[in-house]
Amino acid sequence: MNIQLEIEQRIQEIEAVLKKYLPKEEGYQKTVLEAMNYSVLAGGKRLRPMLMFETYRLFGGSGRIIEPFAAAIEMIHTYSLVHDDLPAMDNDEYRRGKKTTHAVYGEAMGILAGDALLNFAYETAAEALTMEEGTKTAGKAFVILAKKAGVYGMVGGQTVDVESEGCDISKEKLDFIYRLKTGALIESAMVIGAVLAGAKEDEQKTVERAAGKIGLAFQIQDDILDETSSLAVLGKPVGSDRKNKKSTYVAWEGIEKAGQEVKRLFAEAMEELDSLSLDHPFLSELLRYLIHREK
Amino acid sequence: MNIQLEIEQRIQEIEAVLKKYLPKEEGYQKTVLEAMNYSVLAGGKRLRPMLMFETYRLFGGSGRIIEPFAAAIEMIHTYSLVHDDLPAMDNDEYRRGKKTTHAVYGEAMGILAGDALLNFAYETAAEALTMEEGTKTAGKAFVILAKKAGVYGMVGGQTVDVESEGCDISKEKLDFIYRLKTGALIESAMVIGAVLAGAKEDEQKTVERAAGKIGLAFQIQDDILDETSSLAVLGKPVGSDRKNKKSTYVAWEGIEKAGQEVKRLFAEAMEELDSLSLDHPFLSELLRYLIHREK
Repeated sequence: MNIQLEIEQRIQEIEAVLKKYLPKEEGYQKTVLEAMNYSVLAGGKRLRPMLMFETYRLFGGSGRIIEPFAAAIEMIHTYSLVHDDLPAMDNDEYRRGKKTTHAVYGEAMGILAGDALLNFAYETAAEALTMEEGTKTAGKAFVILAKKAGVYGMVGGQTVDVESEGCDISKEKLDFIYRLKTGALIESAMVIGAVLAGAKEDEQKTVERAAGKIGLAFQIQDDILDETSSLAVLGKPVGSDRKNKKSTYVAWEGIEKAGQEVKRLFAEAMEELDSLSLDHPFLSELLRYLIHREK
Repeated sequence: MNIQLEIEQRIQEIEAVLKKYLPKEEGYQKTVLEAMNYSVLAGGKRLRPMLMFETYRLFGGSGRIIEPFAAAIEMIHTYSLVHDDLPAMDNDEYRRGKKTTHAVYGEAMGILAGDALLNFAYETAAEALTMEEGTKTAGKAFVILAKKAGVYGMVGGQTVDVESEGCDISKEKLDFIYRLKTGALIESAMVIGAVLAGAKEDEQKTVERAAGKIGLAFQIQDDILDETSSLAVLGKPVGSDRKNKKSTYVAWEGIEKAGQEVKRLFAEAMEELDSLSLDHPFLSELLRYLIHREK
C-alpha cells in the first residue's frame, strides 16, 4: 500500500464532499460566504472527516448519511482555527502556507466568518435529521458532535489553554487541555462514524478510548513538529508555542520523552482497535502515518 | 391588564428556564463557564424566548419541549451581542448598564465565550431531539433555528451591516440587513413556537410573515431610541450608530418617518395574527408595548 497516495486520494474524495456542502458565493453576504469557503478550502490534512469515514467503513457503513457530518466536523475544526488565529488569540498571519482568514478579510470578518462556519456546521449536520436512513442514529450523532465541540469539549480545552499561557501548570491540567482541545473532536469524528454505521454500545466505547489516545498522540506530535520542523515544511512559523509561552508536552518532558509518549499512545490505540476483531488495514496505516508524520 | 407587570412575571419564568439549562461553573474551564453565564444573565428583555413561548401558547402548546429551544435562542442572541461588542466590531464597554463580557474577561475569553454559547445553544436544543414528545417536530424546529441564526439569517445580516459602515447603501440593502440581522431570529422564535405546538403549514407561514414585520419594527424602534434616549434610560451609550456611521432607517428617512414605519408595520403584523382567528390578548399587548417601548 502506498499510504501517501491512498491518503491523497481520500483527501480528494473528502474535498468533493466538502464542496458539495459549502455555500454558494452570492447575494449581499457574498464576502462572508467567500471567507467561509476560503477558510475551509485553504488545505489541511482533513484528518477528522477522514477518521470519521474510515471508522464508518470499519463497521460496514456504506450510506450517504455520513457526508453532512463529515462536512460539519471539518467546518467546526476550521472555525476553531479561524478564531485561534485572530489577533486577540494567537495572532497568526499564516497557516498552511496561506494568509489566515482575518489577514485577508479583516478582523471583524474573521470573527463573523468563524461564527458563520460554526453555525453552518450545525445547519449542515441538521440535514441528516431529515434524511430517510436512520434519523434516530443521526440524532445521537448530532448530540455527540455538539457536546465534543463545545465547552465540555474543544472550546473548553481552548479556554484553559489560553488561560494557561505563560503559567506553570500541572501535568493533570496539561492532559485536560490536550484531551479537550484536540482529543474531543477526534473522538467525536470516530464515534460518529461508529454510531452511524450501527456499531454496538461497547464497540462505540472502544472506539472512543482509541480515539482519545490517537488525539493525544496527534497533538504531542504537533508540538514536536512546532519545535523541530521549519516554515517551508510545515507551512506555518515554527517555535510559536515557545513564542506564546504555551505549556506543551515538549516543554514538560523534553522532545525525546514526548516522542516515546507518541509511540506508546499509538500502540495502545492500535491494541484497542485490534480488540474489535475487524479488518482495518488502511485505518492502521493512516494512523501510523499521521502520528509519525513530519508535517 | 397591567402589561409591565405581566411582562416582568414572564421574564422571571424565562430566567428560571434559562438557569435550568445554563452550565454549572466548575472544572478547569470555570472561567469560560462564568463568562457564558455572566453574558446570558446580564439582563435583557428576553424578547425572543418570550415570543416563542407566547406563539407556542397561541396554538395551544403546553409541553416542556419548548424549553430547550427557548433557552437556546436566548443563548444565540447573547453570543451575537458578545461578539458584536468586541473591540474589532462595535467596541462597546457597556450594555444594559453592565460591563460587556470582553470588558470583564478580556478579548480572547470574549471570543471563546461567544463561541461556547453558540455551541451550547445547539447542545441544549439537541436535548429536544431525544425527548419523547414529538422528535419529528423537534427536528424541524432545529433546522429552522440553525438556518435563521446563520449566514442566511442573523450572521449574514451582521456581516453586511459591518461591511456597510460608513457607506451609502440602497434602501433594498438596508431592508436586507434588518430582515436578517434582527428579523431572522424573531421569525425563528415565533415559527418554532408554532411548529412545536403543531400549527399547520399555512399558519406557520402567517406567523413567519407577522414575525418578519415585528422584527423590522423592533429594529427601527431600536434605531429611534439610539438617537432619542439617554444612557440612564437605555443602559448603553446613545448615538453609537451615528458614531459608527451605521446606515439606519433613522438616517435614511428621519425620525418622524421611521416612527410612522414602526406603526404601519405593527398594524400589518396585527392584521396577520388576527387572520389566524386565535385568542391572543397578551401577545397583542406585548407586541404593542415592545414596539412602542422607550428603552
